[in-house]
Amino acid sequence: MNSRTGTRTGEVMDAIRRRMASRTLSPGEKLPSIRSFAAIMGVSPSTVVEAYDRLAAEGVIRSRPGSGFYVSGALPPLALTEVEPRLDRTIDPFWVSRQSLDAAAETLKPGCGWLPADWMPNAAIRRAIRRLATADDAILADYGGTRGSLALRRLLGRQFADEGLTAGADQILLTGSGTQAIDLICRFLLRPGDAVLVDDPCYFNFQALLRAHQARIVGVPYTRNGPDVALFTEALTVHRPRLYITNSALHNPTGATMAPQTAHRLLSAAAAHDVTIVEDDIFAGFESEPSPRLAVLDGLAQVIRIGSFSKTLSASIRCGYIAARPDWVEALVDLQVATSFGGPSPVAAELVLATLSDGSYRKHLDALRRRLARSRREVAARLDALGLRPWLLPRGGFYLWCSLPDGRNAADVARAALRGTVVLAPGDVFSVSRSASAFLRFNVAQMEDPRVFDVLARAMAAEG
Amino acid sequence: MNSRTGTRTGEVMDAIRRRMASRTLSPGEKLPSIRSFAAIMGVSPSTVVEAYDRLAAEGVIRSRPGSGFYVSGALPPLALTEVEPRLDRTIDPFWVSRQSLDAAAETLKPGCGWLPADWMPNAAIRRAIRRLATADDAILADYGGTRGSLALRRLLGRQFADEGLTAGADQILLTGSGTQAIDLICRFLLRPGDAVLVDDPCYFNFQALLRAHQARIVGVPYTRNGPDVALFTEALTVHRPRLYITNSALHNPTGATMAPQTAHRLLSAAAAHDVTIVEDDIFAGFESEPSPRLAVLDGLAQVIRIGSFSKTLSASIRCGYIAARPDWVEALVDLQVATSFGGPSPVAAELVLATLSDGSYRKHLDALRRRLARSRREVAARLDALGLRPWLLPRGGFYLWCSLPDGRNAADVARAALRGTVVLAPGDVFSVSRSASAFLRFNVAQMEDPRVFDVLARAMAAEG
Repeated sequence: MNSRTGTRTGEVMDAIRRRMASRTLSPGEKLPSIRSFAAIMGVSPSTVVEAYDRLAAEGVIRSRPGSGFYVSGALPPLALTEVEPRLDRTIDPFWVSRQSLDAAAETLKPGCGWLPADWMPNAAIRRAIRRLATADDAILADYGGTRGSLALRRLLGRQFADEGLTAGADQILLTGSGTQAIDLICRFLLRPGDAVLVDDPCYFNFQALLRAHQARIVGVPYTRNGPDVALFTEALTVHRPRLYITNSALHNPTGATMAPQTAHRLLSAAAAHDVTIVEDDIFAGFESEPSPRLAVLDGLAQVIRIGSFSKTLSASIRCGYIAARPDWVEALVDLQVATSFGGPSPVAAELVLATLSDGSYRKHLDALRRRLARSRREVAARLDALGLRPWLLPRGGFYLWCSLPDGRNAADVARAALRGTVVLAPGDVFSVSRSASAFLRFNVAQMEDPRVFDVLARAMAAEG
Repeated sequence: MNSRTGTRTGEVMDAIRRRMASRTLSPGEKLPSIRSFAAIMGVSPSTVVEAYDRLAAEGVIRSRPGSGFYVSGALPPLALTEVEPRLDRTIDPFWVSRQSLDAAAETLKPGCGWLPADWMPNAAIRRAIRRLATADDAILADYGGTRGSLALRRLLGRQFADEGLTAGADQILLTGSGTQAIDLICRFLLRPGDAVLVDDPCYFNFQALLRAHQARIVGVPYTRNGPDVALFTEALTVHRPRLYITNSALHNPTGATMAPQTAHRLLSAAAAHDVTIVEDDIFAGFESEPSPRLAVLDGLAQVIRIGSFSKTLSASIRCGYIAARPDWVEALVDLQVATSFGGPSPVAAELVLATLSDGSYRKHLDALRRRLARSRREVAARLDALGLRPWLLPRGGFYLWCSLPDGRNAADVARAALRGTVVLAPGDVFSVSRSASAFLRFNVAQMEDPRVFDVLARAMAAEG
């Protein structure tokens, strides 16, 4: 199909075709406007125009001058009044996000990227909230400083120092989330058309984010020890990327951890080509034993560390951070002021700080790691009974990256499972090359309800 | 000077010259990297290269091959270790923001854009926080839905309905702040080089934000009734802008309110040229009597309403919103997921909702409006004694846009006042054309300390 040609126009045509196939676009319905679909796909409006023109030439859609494009067929355009969350959206990087975030209460979400709410340190958070009620008016009402809470930045600096990473409080910038941290870095370093390396597979939202920046996304095949260094080095020469974004520890979606030799060779190659590395350390809290970190080896010379508290503390209290070279932090502060006005929420920082400082937090992490180790074993065994095999057994965290048996297609299984109100994460949403159609990413913490396995078994049988 | 030529290169050269004049860049110091300064100025790296080359040709700076550009002079480069907030930064759109946000405790801030913390509804916020401590785990720990709290969106929808604006909850998207709301809209609608109209003068951060999007910023002279409609219409023809951003009510910095005829003519002209209008309604809470709103007249066809709760409720609990056409909201949801992951903080939405719903909130707004009316009168009288005359007497809010006597220069007065630890807002930071050098914007709520007037009088005398 068109996507095989690898052209942008082909991708847009395929996206529209998928929407029609999944009835997200019905006969007679108006297509998204050129502008809005260009924004969604991260392509130029002219690419969408070309794609629509070609689909019109194929007779799949029709142009109504002065009005727009419509899916061919007899029905009148739908009135767009209250738009519901799309329950059968195509398999794109937004699919798993929106299915999971907007899921109804009865939906089970083994495809999502977070822990169930009752696994979080809610007692400590409630203590932090009650303490916040007595904080100074300034904490409750003011914008706060542009870098965010000094106390929280100092605490992060001390944690980094324990790893061997020296970062003054002024090298740390708090942000609204880990994703927003990467977004600010992209604004700072990228221009449309710049190449960016990501792991293949990688966290699907990296692709969505990079599309919003109109970056050229280049995937580097990922091994059980981290990215393939030979292919990484080749990509540096061929694509001259500006950035590489990765999780060194407990990689999303595979759960792999970078080997020390890989880390060293990767850094040397990146230094030789002046490539900045964004190390997303969002899963750090799940490691019992620290593994190599690019930021620590490199000392924040060309590595930028980002992270957040959403995986082990709270995703609702939105707070992330960037640790980087001081001059880069200065520019990032300006960009955050310009685009969010002010730094991150002082209220959010206060809640995070109080929870991290609560005596129970370390125990919470210990208990979480033990519970997840047990869940990984148990879920792996139950998946094995269905013929689903983990690519590796991760040292920590909640992901299992599993291959499907007998050439089954993960997107089809995910679509079938959704009819049973179970959201899965099909491999291709993580894969730039779309070469992971035989994989599913499971979140072991979201699989305590046996219905997950019933629906999964049925979905695999229906598809097989 | 170069800025008069209106070229991007000239602007970059001027910015560097101002930094040298203000000693933000000292002799021998290394200039910002091409990339970082391009990001700060919102221009392409090649523009910065050209500007640096020209300054080098003038002998103002020197190039050291393989190292970068340095201010001419004998001193060695400064070691950039812990970078302090810049206390004498040039007068650019970031200046007032950073001076105000990062001000030391003893600094007085008549130039800032918010109320003192003790003017905010802190008792109601504390009640909301104590209630939050008993909320469901899901509120405390989960990402929440992609549009944000349904209860808060419904409450906003009811408020809009009272004004005559019908917007379903699915036409409302919560965001991390009012600025982030505009930023998302810019991501959605703008491409680098697109023209955007703003009022001249306008809120200075609009310029910073639009620069981050590499928009061409076009100022429309602002009258006491709103933008000059004839010049607005001319700008539509000449510049073919994609967007116009304004505050219809209690305009920042002037405090003016759009006349009904202006609103109607503006909308008609914008419709004829297919221009989208972003109406920033952030000061709505300060109006006793509602004035015309573009969003209400237009019914969200080509107007997007944005707002936040940071001026009358809390700037620390970060939450803003967008109300727009349903299909646009869909695309904006995707962009917010891609760039911030998830919607806005459920914790923040819960606190805003509980405070807005608190019986005391309406009384708080009434008391605030009375207190501000008194402050505007008293401050206007005291400024009058110094020869500072308000351009108009606003119907509400905390701003007074005042002209300086005798050709005094606002930037010089602001610089002198800063030495007395008083942050002022000089007119030119609000003016795209830099034609407001004889104006200062005062925030009457930040002027209860008599030291403000002492320092202001001295600063004006020193400069005179």
